[in-house]
Amino acid sequence: MASRRADPDRRGELLYGLHPVAEALRARRRALRRLLVREGREGAAVRRLRARAENLGLPVAVLSDQAFRKRVPEGRNDQGVALEAGRLPELSLQALVDEAAVPRRFVALDGVEDPQNVGAIARVAEASGASGLILTERRAPPLGAVVARASAGAIESLPVARVANLARALEILKAAGFWVFGADLEAREDLYALPDRAFEGDACIVLGAEGRGLRPGVRRRLDHAVRIPMPGRVASLNVASAAALVLFEWVRRGARRGVSSGESVASGPSGPARG
Amino acid sequence: MASRRADPDRRGELLYGLHPVAEALRARRRALRRLLVREGREGAAVRRLRARAENLGLPVAVLSDQAFRKRVPEGRNDQGVALEAGRLPELSLQALVDEAAVPRRFVALDGVEDPQNVGAIARVAEASGASGLILTERRAPPLGAVVARASAGAIESLPVARVANLARALEILKAAGFWVFGADLEAREDLYALPDRAFEGDACIVLGAEGRGLRPGVRRRLDHAVRIPMPGRVASLNVASAAALVLFEWVRRGARRGVSSGESVASGPSGPARG
Repeated sequence: MASRRADPDRRGELLYGLHPVAEALRARRRALRRLLVREGREGAAVRRLRARAENLGLPVAVLSDQAFRKRVPEGRNDQGVALEAGRLPELSLQALVDEAAVPRRFVALDGVEDPQNVGAIARVAEASGASGLILTERRAPPLGAVVARASAGAIESLPVARVANLARALEILKAAGFWVFGADLEAREDLYALPDRAFEGDACIVLGAEGRGLRPGVRRRLDHAVRIPMPGRVASLNVASAAALVLFEWVRRGARRGVSSGESVASGPSGPARG
Repeated sequence: MASRRADPDRRGELLYGLHPVAEALRARRRALRRLLVREGREGAAVRRLRARAENLGLPVAVLSDQAFRKRVPEGRNDQGVALEAGRLPELSLQALVDEAAVPRRFVALDGVEDPQNVGAIARVAEASGASGLILTERRAPPLGAVVARASAGAIESLPVARVANLARALEILKAAGFWVFGADLEAREDLYALPDRAFEGDACIVLGAEGRGLRPGVRRRLDHAVRIPMPGRVASLNVASAAALVLFEWVRRGARRGVSSGESVASGPSGPARG
């Protein structure tokens, strides 16, 4: 009879690559179990990871090439390190809202199913100072090793909420005073022509999958459907590049107003009230 | 005795995927040889490609799954189409300069070796209206099928020059009146704080590989070393996201001045003379 004990890999993740492993050890938002090092990979970066793991009281296993390859298949760009870890915690929408500093800036994904794209978006979101990522229960990947790798570890620092119904989640955010933005190739509003005040206050930026865009129920909830002007001939962007351009417009406008990102507003409501 | 006739694949490329094939058929900058269609893949998009190929007088072969897989290995996201084609032409630096409309905007890569990244950069460059890409002979990939796929076909519309020595190429561009920009994590100049006049005239934007950055000989040639402000904690961007942010700053500043990209300056020099 087969053991009924769950396979540890089914309960957790095997992260790989220097950045994802280093960020998981730094952020400590996952259960940390064991660091795996491929024999002969003892460069400075790997030595620093070992020291950090040992400081945290974590077991470190140095595996032969063959044993390492049994855990991490070839072609994963693992850089000779892997980490047995638990899953990243996922929050409720309410907890995400409550725990974020104002002004809040969330990124919501509507049907972006490719974990490479989700990871790349998490990376630009974190770099831009966004306060959280909203994913749907269906039509979004788990926060597994591929997302972690594609985010270069940034997903370890970015709170994620998982919602059953994105249109409903946007309604809740709007009722809480958020402005909802969506990026859309055919939108009428030029991102760069929006007035500075559109970038004040709490915001949620919704991005759809390349080609399919936003679903009508999501599109109807937008306060601003914005277009990135593209002077080229082919003129298409992947969703992570579009995310970078939209999200860093908040960075740029914030710099113009002399606001540092993540700064708390000490008094009064955050930004203008919804009209 | 083995035939001395060259294998056609050694002289050309096997492109795959709807966008790369469609763009190659549209741009017609490569020699076009034969369209391959996987049997059973006869959706509207593939039918349009077939019709376009037939209009160009190109042979079309419908291959069984097995025969198609012999040409295009599994896991390439080929969408059931492939194109036997010649290589993309590569220009000399002088030809690139001569053929571009003013104001010219070039992107130069210093040690970006991953064809996925080169393709992704070509895509954002084309979308932003850049007039050409400068690659080095060594430490840059050939413009093969992986670059074409990652660029979503945009590489078919973006002229490319290949240079032996990038530092020397930058000197030549500077002598011709170009401003040379480089993106650098530790640079002193904030991209968003540059004055509008920095975005006028001919420009070349140099990007280095993630982690390694620009080589000292290249860095010394920069007129502006610019930093993208990143308020996040992990705060790192991949080179294609950084490229998008830097290149679209020209789009945004151009829109502010009411200049459409690619517009020719009818009289006088293009932008301010070098100081």
